[in-house]
Amino acid sequence: MPITLLTDFGTADYYVAAMRGVLLSRSPHVPVVDITHDVPPQDIHAAAFTLLAAYRVFPDGVIHTVVVDPGVGSARRPIIVTAAGQMFVGPDNGVFSYIYDREPDARVFHVTNDRVFRHPVSTTFHGRDVFAPVAAALSVGVPPADLGIEIGDAVRLEPLRVERTDGGSLRGRIIHVDRFGNCVTNVTPADLPEGNLSHGFRLLAGGREIRTLRRYYADEGARDGDLFAIWGSAGFLEISANRDSAARRLNLRRGDPITIEGA
Amino acid sequence: MPITLLTDFGTADYYVAAMRGVLLSRSPHVPVVDITHDVPPQDIHAAAFTLLAAYRVFPDGVIHTVVVDPGVGSARRPIIVTAAGQMFVGPDNGVFSYIYDREPDARVFHVTNDRVFRHPVSTTFHGRDVFAPVAAALSVGVPPADLGIEIGDAVRLEPLRVERTDGGSLRGRIIHVDRFGNCVTNVTPADLPEGNLSHGFRLLAGGREIRTLRRYYADEGARDGDLFAIWGSAGFLEISANRDSAARRLNLRRGDPITIEGA
Amino acid sequence: MPITLLTDFGTADYYVAAMRGVLLSRSPHVPVVDITHDVPPQDIHAAAFTLLAAYRVFPDGVIHTVVVDPGVGSARRPIIVTAAGQMFVGPDNGVFSYIYDREPDARVFHVTNDRVFRHPVSTTFHGRDVFAPVAAALSVGVPPADLGIEIGDAVRLEPLRVERTDGGSLRGRIIHVDRFGNCVTNVTPADLPEGNLSHGFRLLAGGREIRTLRRYYADEGARDGDLFAIWGSAGFLEISANRDSAARRLNLRRGDPITIEGA
Repeated sequence: MPITLLTDFGTADYYVAAMRGVLLSRSPHVPVVDITHDVPPQDIHAAAFTLLAAYRVFPDGVIHTVVVDPGVGSARRPIIVTAAGQMFVGPDNGVFSYIYDREPDARVFHVTNDRVFRHPVSTTFHGRDVFAPVAAALSVGVPPADLGIEIGDAVRLEPLRVERTDGGSLRGRIIHVDRFGNCVTNVTPADLPEGNLSHGFRLLAGGREIRTLRRYYADEGARDGDLFAIWGSAGFLEISANRDSAARRLNLRRGDPITIEGA
Repeated sequence: MPITLLTDFGTADYYVAAMRGVLLSRSPHVPVVDITHDVPPQDIHAAAFTLLAAYRVFPDGVIHTVVVDPGVGSARRPIIVTAAGQMFVGPDNGVFSYIYDREPDARVFHVTNDRVFRHPVSTTFHGRDVFAPVAAALSVGVPPADLGIEIGDAVRLEPLRVERTDGGSLRGRIIHVDRFGNCVTNVTPADLPEGNLSHGFRLLAGGREIRTLRRYYADEGARDGDLFAIWGSAGFLEISANRDSAARRLNLRRGDPITIEGA
Repeated sequence: MPITLLTDFGTADYYVAAMRGVLLSRSPHVPVVDITHDVPPQDIHAAAFTLLAAYRVFPDGVIHTVVVDPGVGSARRPIIVTAAGQMFVGPDNGVFSYIYDREPDARVFHVTNDRVFRHPVSTTFHGRDVFAPVAAALSVGVPPADLGIEIGDAVRLEPLRVERTDGGSLRGRIIHVDRFGNCVTNVTPADLPEGNLSHGFRLLAGGREIRTLRRYYADEGARDGDLFAIWGSAGFLEISANRDSAARRLNLRRGDPITIEGA
């Protein structure tokens, strides 16, 4: 079963290579795919969003290994999650929250069987000594229940849900800003039925009003910098700027609020 | 047949991972190699140069997948190119121009068979929903003619040709600046026969004259920052600085003109 | 046998792709793993450290290909190193020094058999035309002695040893700064037996005194920015800051001295 890697290690140091070396030693015939190693250091929310946006296109049986782990070496638990025919390995710090929220069949195992770990276990690098070895074991068929015990109290982040105000507006927030400056909101198509937009689309963000909901980025009539909303590839409403960075134009960052009027 | 990926997605977001997930699902045994994902956003010229510099070392049958696609979602055509025993998949925006210019056997197919696409097709992410699925289909043996119809009007960028002035000089331009600050020109060995340099080498760029044509970077007698020209590994004349960035020293950018006197 | 790549090429240009293309052409079934391509340009010390920190987790028979090569095209020798059941390919500029220092069975071969090279050999890109072809040959079983002759005068960097002063202190230096701002010193557990710290731990660096030697990064009682020392995953003492960059707080760079008092 293939393995993916999602970390905040960057690619300039030896950290990713060390995980790759462990996998190459322990499961030499298993394909390994990088999701990204450029999660901002220790940014659990960014890792959780990136995993959410990517996991569904991978095949059944894939093992996603997530190492964004500010608590490395402390008492935080290493866990395995099984959900939607896939597996997930990483620290119990909320990084798998959105998988729990979206997949009703999710089960979580606290990894207690340290025999598969790489010894001696470094207190600062569980990616190499704990998580890669666990992923390798799963990839060659060791069942999660052989590696740990099921738990019911995994750490969760605040859900991605939007709020509806008494006045009939929809309150959301920016949950991700990508390299192009597109601002991903937590608004899904289910939150915003098309019929509700009969009086026109009005999104407020960064002190500006956006009234355009486009079907795709390119638009012959648009001027550079024009702001618009668009349904993005991760399944959320995004705020974009024509051949420009919406995040820079609106001075938006993750966590900033947005409102959709009369939705 | 192996697949390569060349995009402007960067490596911090989930975009490359999503393409990898599609390939892993649809052609799990096919090797996938990254050319680069750090093409400057929407920079078709940079992608075209990078592809030109890299494609020939890959084996017969390789499928190069290029997603630098400012027109994603609009009417621009998805295409397959066959040339020199290799295949190329991407948008019809000129990114394959230098392949057409160099390979006389190039044929271009407009992909019209959407049955292989990933559905629903996102209007903002054809890398995942169109180009990766087409590359996967080609890699498992589907012929290009089963996926689309041959066309003769593919979009082309300005060719890389140099110009010769009445005064016997050669007018070229910078076509790429690499991470070390080396400035790649569009001058090839065919443009500059050695016999023509009997009166000495004189290259004008960024308001400076360069009279040194070196055989290799290292030169014991040179001082740091010394400027020189050198035949680069992509098959073009490059302007370099001794242990320094020529681009910074000469304030050169892509598109800037250069002249070689009396060549 | 798998191959690793460690270069200063960055990932934005076509250089890594060209090496990958050669490997895919010449040893198509061999797994290739990137250690990193983000070594600072021409920084032999950084490459040597990264290789040292990563090589041991890779399996027997692996071929590490290192291309950080300021002398490309000059008389510096291409070499193969065999050590600890692994092989190493690269320029003879000291980049394998720490392998020689640590592995008593290390042998070095000057590659003189240019029949395996890619021809014509570019004077500026031996990664593509010399080192990747040599790695591919080794990976399919060609013995090092068929490719060159053993030598005894390989170039070496200054060893990573610490010094002990007459006053009983230990003088070391910063040998690496990672992406998180952790400052790796050249102090190993063998240099600093626990019994020697009975009077307390006192490390001087960047004009500050650090008295905390932690077991792991996370510490509930610590304030952001608190400085501490910790045994790092590469086997050396590191200086870290609580959820902050120690390098920035102490203004430390590679090569800067440190002292451990009364050790």
